[in-house]
Formats: sequence, structure tokens, C-alpha cells
Amino acid sequence: MKFYHAPGACSLAAHILLHEAGLAYEPIRVDIPTRRTEAGDNFAAVNPKGYVPALAFEDGRVLTENVAILDWLSRQAPELAPRDEAGRTRLIEMLAFLSTELHKPFIRLFFPAGDAERDQMAEAVAGRFDWLAGRIEGGYLLDGRFGAADAFLYVMSRWAGTLGVPLPGPVAAHAALVEGRPSVQAALRSEGLS
Amino acid sequence: MKFYHAPGACSLAAHILLHEAGLAYEPIRVDIPTRRTEAGDNFAAVNPKGYVPALAFEDGRVLTENVAILDWLSRQAPELAPRDEAGRTRLIEMLAFLSTELHKPFIRLFFPAGDAERDQMAEAVAGRFDWLAGRIEGGYLLDGRFGAADAFLYVMSRWAGTLGVPLPGPVAAHAALVEGRPSVQAALRSEGLS
Repeated sequence: MKFYHAPGACSLAAHILLHEAGLAYEPIRVDIPTRRTEAGDNFAAVNPKGYVPALAFEDGRVLTENVAILDWLSRQAPELAPRDEAGRTRLIEMLAFLSTELHKPFIRLFFPAGDAERDQMAEAVAGRFDWLAGRIEGGYLLDGRFGAADAFLYVMSRWAGTLGVPLPGPVAAHAALVEGRPSVQAALRSEGLS
Repeated sequence: MKFYHAPGACSLAAHILLHEAGLAYEPIRVDIPTRRTEAGDNFAAVNPKGYVPALAFEDGRVLTENVAILDWLSRQAPELAPRDEAGRTRLIEMLAFLSTELHKPFIRLFFPAGDAERDQMAEAVAGRFDWLAGRIEGGYLLDGRFGAADAFLYVMSRWAGTLGVPLPGPVAAHAALVEGRPSVQAALRSEGLS
């Protein structure tokens, strides 16, 4: 399986899950502005949408979109898998929230069209971190144990550090706890970030 | 089951699925700016995130986020359910795309912080409709039959009409096909839109 990613991008969450699940994969870096892989191949031929993460399987199928990839990866190892169907629905709900309500405003905060948008997006991001702070129980977002949603939130908390966005105490503690995991350290090393 | 929605909002997709699946539900309209239901109740007590759709079950659980709700509703009727696990992953992938890459830019196009953001979002929306145009086969987005992704795309196509965003031919044809379904007409009537 080939794993297309960009260092420190939202694909880092899937990278962490790949290590958690102990899956064999070939990491391939993508330069998003030029849509070229590190070997110079055209990434748009793999994912015409042009963004990471993307998983390319041996049979030729390609899976895209963080929510779908993180849901799929969660079912590849018993310790990551939701306990039942209701748990999977809760995971998808949380991944969808992180993707639409936190990730998307963050992208606009990195690349705002102007000051007014930057201010609106900063307010949105702060409000959503506050909501998430109230959802962390037993250290993690769901079921009191580490899972895909935690990997995704960790990446956003890391971005907060990059942009100087203050984190509520429970979210900062969550990021520190997640960052201590061997899988996270391995993914950061693989992306040249540790 | 209580179904919290706002007329013509993204919750219309779930409303269509409720009719497709023939589920019994109590429709409750929410005024998003005031976060009050039509009976004057505080919607934030149901969904602290403040937005629709939300499904409140008899046992007190509340499900939010379009991707999670549409995935759940898809499994409530055999004719809506993906054929297998791979099909469900493809459905989640498409719902995630519609939610993050089309719905989110559309919201910013309805309420842009300024002209620069409006222009960027209009370009994003146009590009994503173009990509979707190439994904419609046999009239629909997945497996050549109507499903949750079609209901979601239909709502966005409807918004395009409201904002005067031009639709590629295949997407306009898709919207017309979907709009002809009895479930869609029933949901539109229920929301006072037909």
C-alpha cells in the first residue's frame, strides 16, 4: 500500500494510524503546490482532487478523504477499532466534526483571503477547540482510549502551535499525551519533523 | 425520533433520506441565528454545536454531523444501504468530499468575509462541481442508483440555483432526476419549499 502525504499536513493523522496499526506501507511525499511526488510523478494521476492523504492499494483502488481513510484505518487493528456499530457512528461523527469544523477553518487561517476572513476563522477555531476541551475524558476524545479522532485532533493542535493559536488546557494536555506515543514519534520522524 | 432541521439547509439531505427509508420521525424546525426551535425551545440544549441536522433518539442519544447522519440513515433501508463494506467506505468518502469540499465553500459563498473570499470560494465551488460531473454514472454518484450522496449533492445543486452558480450539464441533469423522486417532493413540502 502506498501512502501519499505531505509533511505536517492533515495526512499526519493517517500516518500515525498506520504506525499504530503496524501496517506495511510505502510512504510517498507530495509537493502540494506542484502536485508532484518526490520522485517527480504526477500526483493528480493518483488523486485527481490533488490533495493528501491518499492510500493506493495493490489492486489499484485509491482511497481519499481523511474521514474515510481514518475510519478505514481504525478497522485494521483491534485496539483502534470502535467497540460496536454505535461506536463507529460516534467515531465518524467526531471525524466529520474535526474535518469540517476545525480543519477547514484552519486551512483558511493559514491562507486567508483577507483580514476579515482571518478574524472570523480565528474565532471559529477558538470556539471549536473550546467545545473539544469539554469532550476529552480519560485523556482521549472517545471511549477513554486513543483512536483516530485523537490523531486528527493532535495534528490540529500542532497547527495551533505553528500559528500561535492558544489551546485550552485540556486540549494542550491531550496533545502532550498523544505526542508521547511511539506511533506519533515514528510518524514525525518519517516526515522529518522530530 | 426527532429530526431537527432548517428549511432548505444542508439538513434537507437527511430529510430526503428519512422519507426514502420510510422512517417515522417528528420534524422540528430550528431558527439557526437564535438557536430556538419553532416551539421556542433552546436548540443548544439538544446540539451544543448549534447547527442542523440533528437526530434525537428515544433513548436520549443525539446524532449530529451530516456525514454521520447520512451514513446512519443509509443503513436503515436495504435500498439505500451500500452493498458491502467497501461500498460503505466509498459512500463515506463521497459524503466527506461533499461536506468538506463543496458544502463548506458554499457556506462561505453565502456569507463571505469580503470580495476576495467570495471569488476564491466561487472558484472552489465551480471546480468541485466539475469534478462531480465526471463522477455521475447511470444518473447517480455511486453504484448507478440513488443514495445519500445524491441527496446531499442535490441540496448543493439547489443552493447553486439560489446563488446563480452555473452547474455543469451532468450535475444539472442529476439535480432534475433527484428532484423528481417522491421522497424529495415530500421533504420539500414538509419544509415549505415546494
